[in-house]
Amino acid sequence: MAIILGVDPGSRITGYGIIRSEGRRIEYIDSGCIRVGEKVMSERLQAIFHGLATLIGEYRPDQFAIEQVFMARNPDSALKLGQARGAAIVSAANSGLPVHEYSARQVKQAVVGKGGADKAQVQHMVQALLGLSRKPQADAADALAIALCHAHMNAGILKVAGGEGRARGGRVRQQ
Amino acid sequence: MAIILGVDPGSRITGYGIIRSEGRRIEYIDSGCIRVGEKVMSERLQAIFHGLATLIGEYRPDQFAIEQVFMARNPDSALKLGQARGAAIVSAANSGLPVHEYSARQVKQAVVGKGGADKAQVQHMVQALLGLSRKPQADAADALAIALCHAHMNAGILKVAGGEGRARGGRVRQQ
Repeated sequence: MAIILGVDPGSRITGYGIIRSEGRRIEYIDSGCIRVGEKVMSERLQAIFHGLATLIGEYRPDQFAIEQVFMARNPDSALKLGQARGAAIVSAANSGLPVHEYSARQVKQAVVGKGGADKAQVQHMVQALLGLSRKPQADAADALAIALCHAHMNAGILKVAGGEGRARGGRVRQQ
Repeated sequence: MAIILGVDPGSRITGYGIIRSEGRRIEYIDSGCIRVGEKVMSERLQAIFHGLATLIGEYRPDQFAIEQVFMARNPDSALKLGQARGAAIVSAANSGLPVHEYSARQVKQAVVGKGGADKAQVQHMVQALLGLSRKPQADAADALAIALCHAHMNAGILKVAGGEGRARGGRVRQQ
C-alpha cells in the first residue's frame, strides 16, 4: 500500500492530487489547488512550500510524483515554472519523500493510453479511473494524473521485480 | 546594524556572501559556495535549501538579497536556474527573512559604479570594498556583490526615509 502525492506546480496555481494505491486497486483521497497568483514572488513560493508541507503532514504520503519538464515555452515562463517546481520539490524532499518525475507523454500514456492525448481527455479519464462524481479542476486533474502514472509505474515495477525474484530463486534452487 | 546574506543561486554552484552593515560601514563576515553538481536534481535543490538554512541558523542574517533574473539564455537553463532560485528563496522565506531582489545592472552599478561592468571588475571591487586579502571565488564574489548592493540601497533608503520623516514632521508642525 502506498499513498501518492502528485503535484502539478505553476507560478499561479499548483494542483495537487492524493491517491492510495494497493496493487492494481486505486482509491481517491483528495485533490485541489494552491492558488498564489495575487502574492509577490517570494510569498508565492513560500505558499507552495507550506501548502504542500501541510498536505504532507495531513495525509502522510509515501511517494511524491511531479511532471518532468523537457521544454518550456520561453525563458521567462521557464524561470517562473522552475521557481515553483523548486519550492514544491524542496517541500517534498524536506519531508523525506522520494521525488519521482514523469514526462507529460508518460503521464498521458498511463492515464489515457495515448502519449499525445489532450487535457480534456486526461481530465475525463482521471474522473473515470477514480470514480469521481464530478470533473476535477484542470490543475488538480493533472496532479491526479501524475499520481496515477506513478501508481501504474509502481505496480509495473513491483510485478517485474516479483517475476525476476521468482525466476532467480528457481534457478538458484536447481544448482 | 544589519547582517545581510547575498545569494547567487545556480543548478551546480550557489554562491553566498554574508556582510555586516552599519550605516556606511561594511564588514565582511563569510562567503563561499554550495556545490551540488554531482547530485540528482531533487537532492541538489535540497542541498541548496539546507545549506542556506544552516548558514541562516549560524549567522542569523536580518536581510536576504538575490539577483533578479530578467532574461535567461534559454528555456532549459532558465528552468534549472528557476528551480535553484526557488529552493534558495523558500529557504530564506521559511526562516522569516525578507527577500530583496536586485537586477544585475543594479548590483554592478552599486559595486563598480557601472551597470555594464564585467565579472572580473565585480570580483576586484568586492575584494577592494571588503578589504579581503585574496579574490573571492567567482560565485561567492557575485553573492557578496548582491549583499553589498543591498547594503548600499538600505543606507540610501534609510537616509531618504529619515529625510522624508523630518520634512513631513516639519510640515505637520507648521499647520
